[in-house]
Amino acid sequence: MTIEAVNEAGARSPRLKLGMVGGGRGAFIGAVHRIAARLDDQYEVVAGALSADPERAGASAADIGIAPERAYADFRTMAGAEAERPDGIDVVAIVTPNHLHHPIARAFLDAGIHVICDKPISRTVEEAEDLVRAVAKSGKVFVLTHNYTGYPMVRHAREMISAGELGRIRVVQAEYPQEWLTTPLERSGQKQAEWRTDPERSGAGGCLGDIGTHAFNLAEFVSGLRVEGVAAELTTFVDGRRLDDNVQMMLRFAGGARGALWSSQIAPGHENGLQLRLYGEKGGLIWHQERPDQLRFTPYGKSPQLVTRGGPAAGSAAAHATRIPAGHPEGYLEGFAQLYADTAALIRARESGRPPDASAALLPTAEDGLRAMRFIAAAVSSSRDDGAWTPLPWPADATGSVAYQGRVDAAAART
Amino acid sequence: MTIEAVNEAGARSPRLKLGMVGGGRGAFIGAVHRIAARLDDQYEVVAGALSADPERAGASAADIGIAPERAYADFRTMAGAEAERPDGIDVVAIVTPNHLHHPIARAFLDAGIHVICDKPISRTVEEAEDLVRAVAKSGKVFVLTHNYTGYPMVRHAREMISAGELGRIRVVQAEYPQEWLTTPLERSGQKQAEWRTDPERSGAGGCLGDIGTHAFNLAEFVSGLRVEGVAAELTTFVDGRRLDDNVQMMLRFAGGARGALWSSQIAPGHENGLQLRLYGEKGGLIWHQERPDQLRFTPYGKSPQLVTRGGPAAGSAAAHATRIPAGHPEGYLEGFAQLYADTAALIRARESGRPPDASAALLPTAEDGLRAMRFIAAAVSSSRDDGAWTPLPWPADATGSVAYQGRVDAAAART
Amino acid sequence: MTIEAVNEAGARSPRLKLGMVGGGRGAFIGAVHRIAARLDDQYEVVAGALSADPERAGASAADIGIAPERAYADFRTMAGAEAERPDGIDVVAIVTPNHLHHPIARAFLDAGIHVICDKPISRTVEEAEDLVRAVAKSGKVFVLTHNYTGYPMVRHAREMISAGELGRIRVVQAEYPQEWLTTPLERSGQKQAEWRTDPERSGAGGCLGDIGTHAFNLAEFVSGLRVEGVAAELTTFVDGRRLDDNVQMMLRFAGGARGALWSSQIAPGHENGLQLRLYGEKGGLIWHQERPDQLRFTPYGKSPQLVTRGGPAAGSAAAHATRIPAGHPEGYLEGFAQLYADTAALIRARESGRPPDASAALLPTAEDGLRAMRFIAAAVSSSRDDGAWTPLPWPADATGSVAYQGRVDAAAART
Amino acid sequence: MTIEAVNEAGARSPRLKLGMVGGGRGAFIGAVHRIAARLDDQYEVVAGALSADPERAGASAADIGIAPERAYADFRTMAGAEAERPDGIDVVAIVTPNHLHHPIARAFLDAGIHVICDKPISRTVEEAEDLVRAVAKSGKVFVLTHNYTGYPMVRHAREMISAGELGRIRVVQAEYPQEWLTTPLERSGQKQAEWRTDPERSGAGGCLGDIGTHAFNLAEFVSGLRVEGVAAELTTFVDGRRLDDNVQMMLRFAGGARGALWSSQIAPGHENGLQLRLYGEKGGLIWHQERPDQLRFTPYGKSPQLVTRGGPAAGSAAAHATRIPAGHPEGYLEGFAQLYADTAALIRARESGRPPDASAALLPTAEDGLRAMRFIAAAVSSSRDDGAWTPLPWPADATGSVAYQGRVDAAAART
Repeated sequence: MTIEAVNEAGARSPRLKLGMVGGGRGAFIGAVHRIAARLDDQYEVVAGALSADPERAGASAADIGIAPERAYADFRTMAGAEAERPDGIDVVAIVTPNHLHHPIARAFLDAGIHVICDKPISRTVEEAEDLVRAVAKSGKVFVLTHNYTGYPMVRHAREMISAGELGRIRVVQAEYPQEWLTTPLERSGQKQAEWRTDPERSGAGGCLGDIGTHAFNLAEFVSGLRVEGVAAELTTFVDGRRLDDNVQMMLRFAGGARGALWSSQIAPGHENGLQLRLYGEKGGLIWHQERPDQLRFTPYGKSPQLVTRGGPAAGSAAAHATRIPAGHPEGYLEGFAQLYADTAALIRARESGRPPDASAALLPTAEDGLRAMRFIAAAVSSSRDDGAWTPLPWPADATGSVAYQGRVDAAAART
Repeated sequence: MTIEAVNEAGARSPRLKLGMVGGGRGAFIGAVHRIAARLDDQYEVVAGALSADPERAGASAADIGIAPERAYADFRTMAGAEAERPDGIDVVAIVTPNHLHHPIARAFLDAGIHVICDKPISRTVEEAEDLVRAVAKSGKVFVLTHNYTGYPMVRHAREMISAGELGRIRVVQAEYPQEWLTTPLERSGQKQAEWRTDPERSGAGGCLGDIGTHAFNLAEFVSGLRVEGVAAELTTFVDGRRLDDNVQMMLRFAGGARGALWSSQIAPGHENGLQLRLYGEKGGLIWHQERPDQLRFTPYGKSPQLVTRGGPAAGSAAAHATRIPAGHPEGYLEGFAQLYADTAALIRARESGRPPDASAALLPTAEDGLRAMRFIAAAVSSSRDDGAWTPLPWPADATGSVAYQGRVDAAAART
Repeated sequence: MTIEAVNEAGARSPRLKLGMVGGGRGAFIGAVHRIAARLDDQYEVVAGALSADPERAGASAADIGIAPERAYADFRTMAGAEAERPDGIDVVAIVTPNHLHHPIARAFLDAGIHVICDKPISRTVEEAEDLVRAVAKSGKVFVLTHNYTGYPMVRHAREMISAGELGRIRVVQAEYPQEWLTTPLERSGQKQAEWRTDPERSGAGGCLGDIGTHAFNLAEFVSGLRVEGVAAELTTFVDGRRLDDNVQMMLRFAGGARGALWSSQIAPGHENGLQLRLYGEKGGLIWHQERPDQLRFTPYGKSPQLVTRGGPAAGSAAAHATRIPAGHPEGYLEGFAQLYADTAALIRARESGRPPDASAALLPTAEDGLRAMRFIAAAVSSSRDDGAWTPLPWPADATGSVAYQGRVDAAAART
Repeated sequence: MTIEAVNEAGARSPRLKLGMVGGGRGAFIGAVHRIAARLDDQYEVVAGALSADPERAGASAADIGIAPERAYADFRTMAGAEAERPDGIDVVAIVTPNHLHHPIARAFLDAGIHVICDKPISRTVEEAEDLVRAVAKSGKVFVLTHNYTGYPMVRHAREMISAGELGRIRVVQAEYPQEWLTTPLERSGQKQAEWRTDPERSGAGGCLGDIGTHAFNLAEFVSGLRVEGVAAELTTFVDGRRLDDNVQMMLRFAGGARGALWSSQIAPGHENGLQLRLYGEKGGLIWHQERPDQLRFTPYGKSPQLVTRGGPAAGSAAAHATRIPAGHPEGYLEGFAQLYADTAALIRARESGRPPDASAALLPTAEDGLRAMRFIAAAVSSSRDDGAWTPLPWPADATGSVAYQGRVDAAAART
């Protein structure tokens, strides 16, 4: 159940040595990654290039207990130096704005260091393709923190569908509304808003890239199906904003399922309203991120049921990602931590030559990152083409991680 | 508040004499119309052509207390005979399958009798156009029972938006999922399923026409905006079904708002899940039909509020349609009854030459019916054209009812 | 399913002739009774003493279409005159303030006229005892409108428990919070607040009598158990108020179940928050009046289920009280109407010598009214005695209606 | 906001050295404490007596990275040895069954080591009184993990009431239903169930002590009022169980407020249903543990509002306990962690002679623990005395922590 419990079966492994790039003072997602890394006690942060500004980098490192000699201002220097050290980091967490993900990940992969990278994987399709190749060549673990896949009930939903409890899937409705960019917040000096609405740092998608990709990723992850075409309408409602802040999309899935995706950052009343609804020949299933510990499951012809984390209907995938009993809410940080815990297990297996645990197959890979970049490109293209259906090709050359290939094969088998 | 209360201000008007076509033994919507007509005590059913089968027509009429000499088997005979009688019906309710709406409505309008018609108005655009002209020529009241517009909180939502509480509307998300046609129910002998999946009786839209039109009507009614284009994907998931059972659609509204519409009859877990969500520059608003007595309203930058029917924030439009105090649930029948009550008031005003009450402007008209038929046609056309954006023209010649024209003008002023 | 549907099996019965005492202009519950009577088309209001003020009585009667010669200002005159008429009323509905229930009910029972009486049955235990005797002597139907027993899912809950789906009941939590008397509304001239806080007109219980009795009645009705003792704390929070506005109570049920009852009219946030929760050896069940169309049912060791009116798990008791399909909300008026419909069936059976339908056993009787009065007396006594456990005797002489006796026997058998 | 953010303002403090007693392999609450300690990175576990069995103690210590020489099998040995070491622990966490809390806490306080103790503080009132004295004498920090007081919205509720947003409180409804002991689980070998139903290890209260005390603690914490009398009914429904599994209680608060408390462990459908509802002259407030990130707040005469953690209406107390933005759910572990983070700040202030932060006043103290023990004793006594109102004395001698005394004074001032 808990990582601790798992470890209790044998001798404890030493904590993995974690480095971090980005996440200095004032950053949001860096702190989240550090909490996630600590929660199950599998990591210890020992090095960092927390800022490109040397003074800020040093102060931020001191804040979180990194020794001065391992506080870097430049990620390339850090990659080189840590690769040299006998006690160098095992793995790096990349938590910078999007446009830096690719060069940083390349630097650490090339230095033979495992990578945990915040999503999206890069700013362009080409960068993502490059990283897929670099990962394959390196033999290192690369995990992309599509964190919502770490929620126990998201994994349970996937497991239920994989087990056929919904029958053949017909309809997938994904949505991710937020309200925080209802006004031109980026012009008020708010850093998060600034870089997320700047195509130089974010890439071609605004709301589309920031949260639409989460909805897309989740739709494929849970359904086990792959989207093969999109018809999209990107809109920018706030005057002067440089990227989309509302996205409508219709989806066609391989095998005939249909769906829709709505993501918006100008929808007052929604704090973080990621929701996934799936309907098959035998039943329907709803998961909402703001109430993550439950699924609403309706077997056709029976009463709707509330399947809870830790409750009587939760299976092994949910149990693996569960720390505390039913009714004691877990949330966003625990879901995020699950990716870190499973990554630790995967790294240890890789290092020791053991086969990975079942959970490794659930970790988002570089190929998932590439797929999201292609999704962005297809949606932008469709929207420019007045909503024409635009294919989202499935990589013929998806030769990367075994985990991802396994998911590819499973998806193919289902359609 | 209640119709009774309104009446108590002056002498009571005699009940309107109501005839009914359709709604014999075993019918669903006919019984609903009769309850709706009785609820506020403004009508008395005195004549009917409840079935085309004479024996069944007679028995059904006897069931509900219609005198034998006013139990007809043929609607044309009924229209003629009732028009001749000194105590003939004031108004007829048409509750047959869709394909009969047009000829029956024509017959009664031509006979100078007011009409209440179940939706959709007809099977084709052309029939609907003909009825718009016939209504205009007749000078009679024609009300289409888009019943969800009778719910107090739907009217309150419209009033809030009209008063600018949401600011300029940006996004409208309409959906209407149901589960009842998840399996091929129409092959089991279920009458409701049979005619609703038969293009001869239903028209070109299956799920699209049956419930998609409700979602479309509501989106325009509440937002006060008009849809000017649709990009649609109609799908039939149940093998052998002759009409669509799932509809995805993107919407463009005049003035720049965007939206989506999903209607489905194969979505397990949804009994009657009509939901409307609207987002503007200043706030967001959600209404769900299965919990009709409340709105979730979020003024941007403040906490979400639950605005309840009868509660402190409900305004005059809600109060007009409210019979009992807050917390005592009203539902589908009361909403339906509201259309009947407001129609009675409109007929009396029309007959007496008085100007209509404010509520008359909310009643769905023949033009609303025509608009829904054009919506169906546009969606079918778009879907056949691989989802191409298809315009939904606004009638240049919308010269029908004053109520509708007022709504047209109001919408134009807003965009 | 619907009363109409039932009637369609045979020739229609003529509508019952209904008289009304109370319910003139401005009254709330009188209008509710009239809507309830109309909804299923089993009654026609033909006579009334709607006010003790002759002018108001006449005007109120005219408002609702009562012929002038049957508009009375005095209920005794009405009882006598209607009993004499060949077309006299079959049944009278009593909708006055509480203190008049007893004399009016006596007058009509003595005149041989069936009675539908708003709750509570009387102002005192003695009056209630007198009515129980009078009903028995008269041979007439007497129905008390504990309207919440008319909700389909309340009846279904009772049926589930009776069928053993919860196992032996251990705990019953009943509550009925409202907010409307948070301030001294009775001093603002609001009529409803005035008489409800006046012991001369309401009796010994304020909040206790007005709504606590509903919660008590529902707890016994659904559980099939009888309360045998109460420990109560009555409080008056609003300065100058003459009756309790908040009631805490512990309950002991025959057979060993335990429970609590809270009723309050000073609880901001609750419009009409009647809720019943029951827990047995095999499962738990929750019903909330503000969402009346569903039950939350948890079979121990399984996921909670949402059992809906019209849904797959609803049984015959729910179906009997259901008019429209699942997902189309029914509410307060439909529940109220159900008592009227079932009363009509019972009166017809009584008049024709036929055995009553199964639904007759669910109708609240004079004995239920007496029981509620004894409940009020016991709670007031306990509170005066500093919360001492006070017995609530079960009538050894419950010889009244067959329906009630059947419920007594069933309860005895279960404990 | 986050502890990390706070630290970023200045140089980082070294982590506190934490010891643990109890919490070996298979224990539940020990793992929770360790996660809570890690989450905000203020502690490092360096010593432990995780089990009384030496072999198990050693293996458990190894599991979590404790050096062998600091893995003890006896808590007294540990207290002595750690007090001697120059790098000895700063603080100990006690996570054993209840009956061991007192001797362990005494041993560490006497050794001059700060204590974090799982609730309840002891098995008897006398032991609790002894600990209150021992804490005062020691000058050390003693924090009792009434963890629900660490939830941001619980603290916000307290702050709202303290600021007068509800006006004078009239009614407090506290409840804590669970389902897990519906059957005789303790006879199946389940350890948690075994000791919790054993009076030797749990004390005089079963469900009462285990979870009723949480509800009681929360009612006083949030309302700022003190319970001055209880009338209770303890029941044991499961045959052979040695302690109560269902508790009904009426409450009298100083100053005139009234309330009820229900706790149960035999209530199917409730996983961990702790709920607190408060009603004042100006408004009502509801918090439910299974949806901890929101409050339902109804200012009387306005619409109910959903006040969310991180949302626009959350104040400074909530912000202090918030790590991530609104809509990203936090849960049980984060609330628990908040007590650890605030305790770290308090220990550092105490050690450095600085005045404590405002949050220190919210930490549950030994006096809170004593109060809960007196609550248990009063409830048991009342129940034995057939529910007689039993006083719950307020300690005249509450001279312990400043924090607690501040709360006492504040409560006194409010009543």
